[in-house]
Amino acid sequence: MANRRFVLAARPDTLPRLGDFTLEDAEIPAMAPGRLLIQNRLVGLSPGLRLRLSGERTFTDPIDIGAVVESTAVGTIAQSDHPDFQAGDWVVGNFGWQEWVLSDGKGVSRMPPHWPRTAPLSILGSAGLTAYFGLLELGAPKPGETVLVSSAAGSVGSIAGQIAKRLGTRVIGIAGGAEKCRWLTEELGFDAAIDRKHTPDLGLALTRVCPQEVDILLDSVGNQVIDATLPHMRPHGRIVAIGQIGDYNTDPAHRHGLVNTQYITTSRLTVRGLGVYDFVPRFPEARERLEHWLDEGALKWRDDIVDGLENLPQAFISLFTGGTFGRKIVRLSPES
Amino acid sequence: MANRRFVLAARPDTLPRLGDFTLEDAEIPAMAPGRLLIQNRLVGLSPGLRLRLSGERTFTDPIDIGAVVESTAVGTIAQSDHPDFQAGDWVVGNFGWQEWVLSDGKGVSRMPPHWPRTAPLSILGSAGLTAYFGLLELGAPKPGETVLVSSAAGSVGSIAGQIAKRLGTRVIGIAGGAEKCRWLTEELGFDAAIDRKHTPDLGLALTRVCPQEVDILLDSVGNQVIDATLPHMRPHGRIVAIGQIGDYNTDPAHRHGLVNTQYITTSRLTVRGLGVYDFVPRFPEARERLEHWLDEGALKWRDDIVDGLENLPQAFISLFTGGTFGRKIVRLSPES
Repeated sequence: MANRRFVLAARPDTLPRLGDFTLEDAEIPAMAPGRLLIQNRLVGLSPGLRLRLSGERTFTDPIDIGAVVESTAVGTIAQSDHPDFQAGDWVVGNFGWQEWVLSDGKGVSRMPPHWPRTAPLSILGSAGLTAYFGLLELGAPKPGETVLVSSAAGSVGSIAGQIAKRLGTRVIGIAGGAEKCRWLTEELGFDAAIDRKHTPDLGLALTRVCPQEVDILLDSVGNQVIDATLPHMRPHGRIVAIGQIGDYNTDPAHRHGLVNTQYITTSRLTVRGLGVYDFVPRFPEARERLEHWLDEGALKWRDDIVDGLENLPQAFISLFTGGTFGRKIVRLSPES
Repeated sequence: MANRRFVLAARPDTLPRLGDFTLEDAEIPAMAPGRLLIQNRLVGLSPGLRLRLSGERTFTDPIDIGAVVESTAVGTIAQSDHPDFQAGDWVVGNFGWQEWVLSDGKGVSRMPPHWPRTAPLSILGSAGLTAYFGLLELGAPKPGETVLVSSAAGSVGSIAGQIAKRLGTRVIGIAGGAEKCRWLTEELGFDAAIDRKHTPDLGLALTRVCPQEVDILLDSVGNQVIDATLPHMRPHGRIVAIGQIGDYNTDPAHRHGLVNTQYITTSRLTVRGLGVYDFVPRFPEARERLEHWLDEGALKWRDDIVDGLENLPQAFISLFTGGTFGRKIVRLSPES
């Protein structure tokens, strides 16, 4: 038996290609004193990984050529020589695009047994925490305000929108396709949804739905969305820049640039970039509140699960081509 | 004798032209009960007026076609039937591009007799207040940080840079031409100056002077400066968007757009637009501190004075063509 894994073969400069990743058969790491052998089971895919693949400066180091691609994942302990873990425990960590991991336990945490298996990759993981701190800390919504959420059927957007509704705001989502838009308005309680696939001019759609009355934009898509929204922001509005799914694959020189920047001054807007790991000391507080809402049934979320390690590259690429509905997770073993 | 005045004849869409303004001979307004007749003497010119000329939404209403062009000015009371003012008083208000104004006293304030005559148009007016609140409130500098100031020889930038130096920061100015740069470093105490006229690639110059170490950018120029600076901002840096001298005359469709926006997220930056009139309740506190620094001789400033009402349009246009060194003020009567 081998440890199948994907290493980075080439740095993408536009949309990543299957050939940018190489599938290798490595040895399963040998057990060692004080270590854990983890069988990796569920790999969460996040668009932010894209920047690290092309070697750019971000919150963490780039992924080196030839290195195993990194991603947060859920696994089980196969063998443990570590006092904090037992064989059979479900654990979360940066296990990456591979089947087996030997770890000293640093950065590995045990999953509470009552958590849904995929929760640490979405609602109780970085997506939920990003939604929580992006909305509450950087957006700072007040009841009655209007919150616009892009990529609203994605894992961050869908959670942020539901929290914003609980806080008494009017929430409008932007998503690609009628099915996603129906989910937002009929199941998650969004007040309105704008279907990006049938909206050639986003600015016009905003003029219709929320003309000059957006107090908070939570954006994960990038410059085109921000630029179209700037003229519709209310004075003292806040733009929370979470990510740029729409821009990562385009060289800056060919990117849609923000041109409506005069509104930042004339409407006295605040644009802030979110780095969720700046809030690590407050993760327990946030997780407690998210768990509470989850227990109440107040938060719904969707996993978009793909089976088979060999499908990791394609699943990652699909984050940028609109083929994802919810958190994209690759299941490495059928029993997970 | 007539009241010579300029009215807006056409809305500029690029660089304003002389023909966008019409010189009219109107009647000097007749004195009336409870009113003041003001002889206008010194008109301050600010680039922000540009947006109001083209009819755009800003802090205040656009200037209507056919209306007298507005600007803050200094004048003297010729006749008063108002308890708060006496003939001979020096006053400040939005007197506009004209020689005589009849007022009910609203928005008119008496100048303390010891103030330099041009001070309310620069150091103790909106320029000084913009520098003060832009730097202290939005920039929030800490000793040892690096502050980059664009349009640094202008009235806002030169004051902000000097305050920043007093607060123990390292200050770098961007200005056009060797004379302005010398003034910044030799007379105002800036640590370094980048000459825009001999710097085709601002990003390269920043790599040399302050690579990835800008904590605060105070920008009055616009997208090109912000875009070049984004990769050089330190994590948690602040960009204060004061104005866009470099963008006002370009249609948004042809404007240099911000493309390096990924740094807003990866470096967790805050970009905030400044509207100085949001701070009106704190103007007295700010003026007191600015006056104190002024009395100490700790703040220097330059007026760039042009004589003759008929030169108002050309003086305004020169704000955008690099021909200004300090606060541009048009003196309407030689004795001022």
